Amino acid sequence: MLNKILEASGRLEGIANKTPVMTSRTLNAETGMEIYLKAENFQRMGAFKFRGAFNAMAQLSPHQKKAGVITHSSGNHAQAVALAGKILGIKTVIVMPNNAPIVKKQATIGYGAEVIECEPTQKAREETCNALIEKYGYTLIHPYDNQQVIEGAATATSELISQVGKLDAVIAPVGGGGLLSGTSAYAKLSNTVKYVYGAEPEMADDAYQSFKQKRLIPQTNPKTIADGLRTSLSPLTFNIITKYVDDIITVTEQEIIQAMRFLWERMKIIVEPSGAVPLAAARKLNQTEIKKVGLILSGGNVDLKSYFHDFSTKQGVIYHKDFLT
Amino acid sequence: MLNKILEASGRLEGIANKTPVMTSRTLNAETGMEIYLKAENFQRMGAFKFRGAFNAMAQLSPHQKKAGVITHSSGNHAQAVALAGKILGIKTVIVMPNNAPIVKKQATIGYGAEVIECEPTQKAREETCNALIEKYGYTLIHPYDNQQVIEGAATATSELISQVGKLDAVIAPVGGGGLLSGTSAYAKLSNTVKYVYGAEPEMADDAYQSFKQKRLIPQTNPKTIADGLRTSLSPLTFNIITKYVDDIITVTEQEIIQAMRFLWERMKIIVEPSGAVPLAAARKLNQTEIKKVGLILSGGNVDLKSYFHDFSTKQGVIYHKDFLT
Repeated sequence: MLNKILEASGRLEGIANKTPVMTSRTLNAETGMEIYLKAENFQRMGAFKFRGAFNAMAQLSPHQKKAGVITHSSGNHAQAVALAGKILGIKTVIVMPNNAPIVKKQATIGYGAEVIECEPTQKAREETCNALIEKYGYTLIHPYDNQQVIEGAATATSELISQVGKLDAVIAPVGGGGLLSGTSAYAKLSNTVKYVYGAEPEMADDAYQSFKQKRLIPQTNPKTIADGLRTSLSPLTFNIITKYVDDIITVTEQEIIQAMRFLWERMKIIVEPSGAVPLAAARKLNQTEIKKVGLILSGGNVDLKSYFHDFSTKQGVIYHKDFLT
Repeated sequence: MLNKILEASGRLEGIANKTPVMTSRTLNAETGMEIYLKAENFQRMGAFKFRGAFNAMAQLSPHQKKAGVITHSSGNHAQAVALAGKILGIKTVIVMPNNAPIVKKQATIGYGAEVIECEPTQKAREETCNALIEKYGYTLIHPYDNQQVIEGAATATSELISQVGKLDAVIAPVGGGGLLSGTSAYAKLSNTVKYVYGAEPEMADDAYQSFKQKRLIPQTNPKTIADGLRTSLSPLTFNIITKYVDDIITVTEQEIIQAMRFLWERMKIIVEPSGAVPLAAARKLNQTEIKKVGLILSGGNVDLKSYFHDFSTKQGVIYHKDFLT
């Protein structure tokens, strides 16, 4: 798998953004650690998901590429597949629940995908997908239960190590487990990181439960604000995580919001709730031997519609409750 | 002056952050230019102001350093002086209007400054400052009418050129004119940038008026949302700008908000309204010969209090109008 991850790095060279690593004196002083934030919110389409989607789609056979690909997602994976398809010249079809935010639908269409709406249930998504695959011969690009997607996701960590050197620990958020699988596999197989932690909302703690009980325990309909982390582990990601991850750290909703606020207000970067979860977890890390820590800030796709709608103009003067006038 | 700017760069080495340069495929496609955004929102204390304050204070005589410094500001310059004082071991006193936001007062005190409140008028600020200087022998560190402050500010541009090479044009925001003075002087004296533009809100267009009429025309109490640009040029900055700047581009309040929203939503960086003004101006630049353009994003200090207060918890579930649950 290490070889496959290195191949993925080569495949993404010059196509994915080499995202910057951020640091904060304030954060280091607060935690007593040396924290390196891998800013995948600056990745193309705003999240690490591009790495996996492109890596998987670039390896399809000519026949598969010609037939096109399909996925079901209302989140970052939809945009990742759409953008990778645009770059690779592959037709992309995204099945989205009919209650998905219009802004996400528009962004996906903007990258050139065809969006097919379905009822907002897991069953309807899968049935719609399967019917289209049967009819048109599309290849399914699963958001995380896919080895090439995982290997692509792993390149965020290999790139981080190339930027800052070996680490005592790395923390990645865990939803479906694709990012954590790739992160942990690279970390342990390359022998560049001692400890790997998953960071998960308490309100969507299926990975924590599955990890502790050593069996796959999916969750239904979790409500965490970290919308990217509401999915459950798959057999593939559960196996990799069980093998390479040292522990799963869970965090409360308030801890997620506080971490997000620190990233926005102090570090001046927009990170979505899911991407702030590793920082919330790092603040709870209680290991004196861990000094040099990498955090994967997975994405930055936040809809700021209402925030910017709060700007109003009276007689040519702009007013906003967060700004003095 | 070029030598002094290079000296300032050396002085700030390892003390100021070497801030990253950001690019956006979307923005380049939109404008037909190659745009390099110098992200001074990632500078220490969140704005380019640190460069000037530190550069000026580091050059004080031992006697002046021992006596301490004073300034009047409710904005980024206050925090810049406070932080530079902390690093250099110089006592700092900041005169602030008694209606300044508590968060700014706290941040300044947090960096170790003594804050003295006064009535919220220009006259009260200056009188309070002068009385304290008379009594305690403090040295005034003016936010922009100060040659060393200007030379420090210029290092943002010299650093940008070292990162991306020569430019066709550079655009800096203009309030009191310290940043634009330094930017334009470095650009022209080093012969690394062909055209230099100031970017200014229409609602605080004293630099535009002064530049066009070739005499200093201060403004009173402008209402632009770009709070860092409400000040007027000083004799010193007016002279430098007249000499080295090619034009001043004014922008509306809506154009500022739109630029800010692009930086937040698409580029994932928090930039304050003043810092978004150069992007708004770049979008109005109508010069076919200009391809490679640098923008100085001056700072990112925004109070997100009300935004984060909009997160509320009901039965353990977080709700926010900008997030689905």
